[in-house]
Amino acid sequence: MQNIVERLLTGDRRALARMVTLIENETPIVRDYLAELHRHAGHAHIVGVTGAPGAGKSTLVTHLVRELRRREHKVGVVAIDPTSPFTGGAILGDRIRMMELSGDPNVFIRSMASRGSLGGLAASTRDVVRAMDAAGYDPIIIETVGTGQAEVEVMRTAQTVIVVSAPGMGDEVQAIKAGILEIADIFVVSKADKPGADQTVAELAMLLSLDPQRRLHDKSQPYWRIPVLKTSAIKDQGISQVVDAMEQHYKYLVESDMLASRAQRQVRSEVQALVLHAVVKALKAEVSEEEWQRVVEDITKRERDPYSVARELEERIGVKGS
Amino acid sequence: MQNIVERLLTGDRRALARMVTLIENETPIVRDYLAELHRHAGHAHIVGVTGAPGAGKSTLVTHLVRELRRREHKVGVVAIDPTSPFTGGAILGDRIRMMELSGDPNVFIRSMASRGSLGGLAASTRDVVRAMDAAGYDPIIIETVGTGQAEVEVMRTAQTVIVVSAPGMGDEVQAIKAGILEIADIFVVSKADKPGADQTVAELAMLLSLDPQRRLHDKSQPYWRIPVLKTSAIKDQGISQVVDAMEQHYKYLVESDMLASRAQRQVRSEVQALVLHAVVKALKAEVSEEEWQRVVEDITKRERDPYSVARELEERIGVKGS
Repeated sequence: MQNIVERLLTGDRRALARMVTLIENETPIVRDYLAELHRHAGHAHIVGVTGAPGAGKSTLVTHLVRELRRREHKVGVVAIDPTSPFTGGAILGDRIRMMELSGDPNVFIRSMASRGSLGGLAASTRDVVRAMDAAGYDPIIIETVGTGQAEVEVMRTAQTVIVVSAPGMGDEVQAIKAGILEIADIFVVSKADKPGADQTVAELAMLLSLDPQRRLHDKSQPYWRIPVLKTSAIKDQGISQVVDAMEQHYKYLVESDMLASRAQRQVRSEVQALVLHAVVKALKAEVSEEEWQRVVEDITKRERDPYSVARELEERIGVKGS
Repeated sequence: MQNIVERLLTGDRRALARMVTLIENETPIVRDYLAELHRHAGHAHIVGVTGAPGAGKSTLVTHLVRELRRREHKVGVVAIDPTSPFTGGAILGDRIRMMELSGDPNVFIRSMASRGSLGGLAASTRDVVRAMDAAGYDPIIIETVGTGQAEVEVMRTAQTVIVVSAPGMGDEVQAIKAGILEIADIFVVSKADKPGADQTVAELAMLLSLDPQRRLHDKSQPYWRIPVLKTSAIKDQGISQVVDAMEQHYKYLVESDMLASRAQRQVRSEVQALVLHAVVKALKAEVSEEEWQRVVEDITKRERDPYSVARELEERIGVKGS
């Protein structure tokens, strides 16, 4: 049984690929594997890259991977495709550019479909990152499309969050409304060769200056001043500075003890999420589809009520004190 | 014990106000009250009003209430204030305009703070609506500020969702990105006296025409064509048409059997949410703060792992089959 785990720990790519598939399929045994992998993980710098569709995330990630390879890092990438409610699909064309990198044995790229529940995606992403981490990849980049609640939740796994904006897309306003401003550690304005890039940089800098935390911070404490960087894929400019900023941010997290305190918060919410997931599974096992339909009908007919039905189910699946 | 419930069912406003407070404070006994109220609820038309800050939601709600009073309805309003992560506050100035209506014994307005968890707000809102419903208010309007995940979740309680946009705010694009397009039943362009109102109407109509469901619907089935209506608070125009559209949409929901099918889906997710809430409470009762800190430290030190800790907690709170 430990064979796949042992092979993964030596850096075996096929074992890692198999593990990721087991995680995505929620194979029961995978929790035992992950328990073992957890003991060997915790070394990687986990970097999230997010931004609106068309902001140039994939292009930026491709260039970051190249630069990180130049610096002799072994790089992992988890790319999350959204399942649009309109299309039902989960394929993005611009993954192709990344394919050229996937021939490199020191680059491991995995694309994940964002099917299932909100919490489900965040949980699988965390597990996949853990497996890559245990296999020796560092840093690991998580790329998410869009800026919704699912992305914000996935981004909690990241230690450093890069938010990408393209000039003239109004992404700055988006960033505030979607709560992205609060989670960004580094801003990147892509397509800096296009007109309006400097204005987008200025607008982002202005927004950041409004952040009260920024104004009220204790000057004696380590403080991270969120940089706004420009990149141009065409001119191959600015990438090295983004990687520098990533490394500086990691250093800041370690020195300010925030790496440890963030990890502790995440561990706690992970344990709670695992317990709740088990409850959802127990409910599924306990209540048949026929029973659900009967119960729901009784409630909508006002013959029963949701509160006493919930209490009965709590007793049946054995939740204490209910 | 049943005194407050009985008084509420006769329409006693003080009993209703007290019940809402009990719901907000998550007083344990309130579930028994709500179980009883559930049997007497289910008559009200529940209408959600949402849109970006500054779109004119409160003004629209005030005018809707006036028009509904003219039509001799007893109207309930649940206004949800966001707890901004920047300000920490939950007070909005423009509630004042609604105050003038609150002297009317046939109008019940309650403002709720959106503190606590995502699911917590949706649950309290549903319970407050249930209490107003049992007290005889119909329709009940839920007003939420902004268009994030919390709002989308709250809006699931509503049977008819009105999305408000102001001219020239780029709300149309916002609507798609925030997933509002999918939940809107009626669009209202407020401030129709301002320049750009007709353009905003045209843009929304164009966006709606792109919805594949709209193009592919079965012509023999009842179908709701999402209207885009203009209102002007200054000129007191368009309000009556919005109330007409609300009533037509309710009629459509009944005739297409969607009122029943939506209610069934909601009941199921409500029961599941109640069970999960009980589990979170059981965890809190079982695991002390000191133990959490110890466990989290063990996990971050890689001496234990989240998966086996979760399994142990599942056993301790008694979740079956784990």
